[in-house]
Amino acid sequence: MTAEMFKENITSRDNPLVRQLKQLCDSRADRYEQQAFVTEGIKLCSEAASAGLVKVLLATDAAIKKYSEELAAIAANCGRNIVISESIAAKISDVKSPQGVFCLCDMLDNRNFADKIDYMDHNGKYVLLCSLQDPGNIGTIIRCCDAFGVTAVVLTKDCPDIYSPKLLRSTMGSLFHLPVMIGGEGEEVVCGLRDAGIKLYAAALSDNSIPLGRVNFEKGSAVVIGNEGKGLPQKIIELCHETVKIEMRGRAESLNAAAAASILTYKLMEER
Amino acid sequence: MTAEMFKENITSRDNPLVRQLKQLCDSRADRYEQQAFVTEGIKLCSEAASAGLVKVLLATDAAIKKYSEELAAIAANCGRNIVISESIAAKISDVKSPQGVFCLCDMLDNRNFADKIDYMDHNGKYVLLCSLQDPGNIGTIIRCCDAFGVTAVVLTKDCPDIYSPKLLRSTMGSLFHLPVMIGGEGEEVVCGLRDAGIKLYAAALSDNSIPLGRVNFEKGSAVVIGNEGKGLPQKIIELCHETVKIEMRGRAESLNAAAAASILTYKLMEER
Repeated sequence: MTAEMFKENITSRDNPLVRQLKQLCDSRADRYEQQAFVTEGIKLCSEAASAGLVKVLLATDAAIKKYSEELAAIAANCGRNIVISESIAAKISDVKSPQGVFCLCDMLDNRNFADKIDYMDHNGKYVLLCSLQDPGNIGTIIRCCDAFGVTAVVLTKDCPDIYSPKLLRSTMGSLFHLPVMIGGEGEEVVCGLRDAGIKLYAAALSDNSIPLGRVNFEKGSAVVIGNEGKGLPQKIIELCHETVKIEMRGRAESLNAAAAASILTYKLMEER
Repeated sequence: MTAEMFKENITSRDNPLVRQLKQLCDSRADRYEQQAFVTEGIKLCSEAASAGLVKVLLATDAAIKKYSEELAAIAANCGRNIVISESIAAKISDVKSPQGVFCLCDMLDNRNFADKIDYMDHNGKYVLLCSLQDPGNIGTIIRCCDAFGVTAVVLTKDCPDIYSPKLLRSTMGSLFHLPVMIGGEGEEVVCGLRDAGIKLYAAALSDNSIPLGRVNFEKGSAVVIGNEGKGLPQKIIELCHETVKIEMRGRAESLNAAAAASILTYKLMEER
């Protein structure tokens, strides 16, 4: 693919489309109002294109040279291809050294947990993230859940937006691979999963927590993970069937949240 | 502890001690030349004090109010306590919202792998990090190794410096809890561990890799983890006794390096 195959060209940083992209990157409200979001980088843009979500592809001359094959594949699946200047790429970008590739994408899918609860796989394995605060942690956990074949991930509504640039980036495209659903408050989601017959394991360091090595996660179960600093509220722990803890033998008081979630997810999906 | 109990006061951003601290934060060469490093934040400073490494404690008025008890404990273990201005804290700090607590610390310990190899516990469990590049990943892995009771962590010499502010921060103090040693090139360290009778498991997605769930890590074994993007060089893999992989069932092509290392470390230390 060469720059000549791109039909349009934008050079002004004040172009309305550039302003729209910048706003979609910065504002959750704008994303949901327009039901659209922006992907950045060749990997994420390619994944969004494979998922059929790309409306507009934008790339710098340098990116078109470097990623000509991948960009041709994305362009084949979207209506508009636009060459942009490096200065526009720097304006939209969320990173220090932008690759110069962006896509304007549709939120085509309905990710509302309440709408999906009746159609859940009762033999599935689920990960529920309650009130996490770091987008990078959530992205890393979604990537793990994808890697291990988790049926679906559910986030409470107070988690960072899954379409924020940082969260999208840390998923490495996994957001487009498995259902990631947005629920209401923690208690609401936990009760929803309970009523659907899912066995819930709260990750918490309580006195009566079962050591992870002794848990045999049956079909139809979920791990419930809490906030990085505060963990799970007592009320949520009580609504779960069991409490599970990762065995700690050393002097560290806690694990990094994404590290803990990775281990829990690995064990949730481990075949015995 | 109150500000009056602090013997000294620095208000100039050009004070030689302030300049020295800033340089130690920014320059690996300066740290090793002076055999000193800087910790930031109440948690990390407290951990460094417990390890007996603190020479000078610096804190802002706001920090002295907020962390009076913890600061008293640190001050009891070090020679100089200095009140600094917010503007100096901002100058030294590596983060957006500094807590206003810093310690100038001695590198008291010898972390040279070659000097330790003859004294290794042949029944220990080790984690070897080869050519990793992200300080945050390394810190998270060291924190995991601490949590699970790994005997020691060894880094090849091309990894980021363990005393860099970002790496220190992500260890949450675990660097002071377990031996973290610095080796030479990857092959050199791998051969050193082999010769010491340690069984080496290379983490790599080769065709003949053993799935992690089927590995029973015996006493006297080590997991060898490679670079975030490139993984382990073939030569290192061949020098190891076994190759192990984390089973992937979904569509993600790879795991985040720290997530993968957490799972490997958990399994390395799992009691059976």
